[in-house]
Amino acid sequence: MPIKVVAFDGDDTLWHNESHFNVTQKALRDLLLSHAPDADVDRRLFANEMANLKLYGYGIKSFTLSMLETAIEVTEGRIPASDLEVILGWGKRMLQEPTELLDGVREALIEVSRTHAVLLITKGDLFDQESKLARSGLGELFAGVEILSDKNRESYRQVLERRGIAADEFVMVGNSLRSDIVPVVELGAVAVHIPYHLTWHHEHVDEAALPARGWHRLEKISELGGLLRELQSRPDRR
Amino acid sequence: MPIKVVAFDGDDTLWHNESHFNVTQKALRDLLLSHAPDADVDRRLFANEMANLKLYGYGIKSFTLSMLETAIEVTEGRIPASDLEVILGWGKRMLQEPTELLDGVREALIEVSRTHAVLLITKGDLFDQESKLARSGLGELFAGVEILSDKNRESYRQVLERRGIAADEFVMVGNSLRSDIVPVVELGAVAVHIPYHLTWHHEHVDEAALPARGWHRLEKISELGGLLRELQSRPDRR
Repeated sequence: MPIKVVAFDGDDTLWHNESHFNVTQKALRDLLLSHAPDADVDRRLFANEMANLKLYGYGIKSFTLSMLETAIEVTEGRIPASDLEVILGWGKRMLQEPTELLDGVREALIEVSRTHAVLLITKGDLFDQESKLARSGLGELFAGVEILSDKNRESYRQVLERRGIAADEFVMVGNSLRSDIVPVVELGAVAVHIPYHLTWHHEHVDEAALPARGWHRLEKISELGGLLRELQSRPDRR
Repeated sequence: MPIKVVAFDGDDTLWHNESHFNVTQKALRDLLLSHAPDADVDRRLFANEMANLKLYGYGIKSFTLSMLETAIEVTEGRIPASDLEVILGWGKRMLQEPTELLDGVREALIEVSRTHAVLLITKGDLFDQESKLARSGLGELFAGVEILSDKNRESYRQVLERRGIAADEFVMVGNSLRSDIVPVVELGAVAVHIPYHLTWHHEHVDEAALPARGWHRLEKISELGGLLRELQSRPDRR
């Protein structure tokens, strides 16, 4: 069966994302250390983000709310409202940041879209992701866009079913082992991992826990066209 | 052409929503008046919500962020962090509230789904809406679910196109003239307005600006089955 559909993750696969969170988190650390010098801000923030995930989901608004909660907590309520206003402003700034494409993204999408239907499958806040896509200038290159509240085996299965795509016609390309690789390989499709230089702790997967087959790792998205041609020519592409 | 697809809005059409916002907004007013007795909290909050809409989109997380901003603003930064923590808690409470169905909803959905494909087309935060739907217990009754960041002529057009539905096979049922009625009638489909006893100011439409034809108003969702049968039997159902 030929590969018909190649889907791309957005954040940290097509455009920078985690680096923006990292910069803001450093600013939060600096701000809070002036009020609570002993606080382990990163640990507290991560704990709040995880506790809030089932209520808030992913995205910048959720991150902003968890930053505010962490700021109040680690300062035991001593933080002035004016500093919390600064944190609100960081969230707004993140929401307006230009969508900064990774190297080679546009060229790779154009190349792949000549021979395959190209989808965007991204996770997170619907409004954020639509807005980022609009600002990316890549919209025209996608035959379809799926924004999922979470990426797991079931949510990928639903996308493939809804679009009438067989697992062995499908390749997923992304930076997150947890969200882009493991569930896709479990469905019997092929996944291509292109690591980003930063990974949110929540997305970490122990390499020993990864499937042995069914996925490939590239250093750069510019290598994708070659890999797809190679996979296409193999009888068992896994 | 027979009516094939009947789509329902969620918030304030199938389940209570605005009333939860109203209760929280009253609590905010009471809290802030203790710090700033002359503040016009409702007006300031609405202005912030509107200014933030293009950044935050709709939903409870957006509302929470706008409440926090309003609280800091109207108290000129005098509000203690502990009170802002209370506001954060209101947001979390709203996100966990049970999905409380309006009267007759389940029966009406069951009736309509016997003869038509039934969709849910709701606007707002993806994560909120999926979570509300899951808590509603209505999931099984829908042939499909569309969560849109905004409901306008273009976003409805895309849904119909994606699902291969002709406008004259489609009926939309909802409480918001702005989101459920006007754009649907503009596309040439039929809309059914079932008012809710509260309407967010942003969703208000001057009745004089409404299309003259192409929509119907019911008092209760239990009347929908009868209206659909009547429309089906008319040569020009508009």
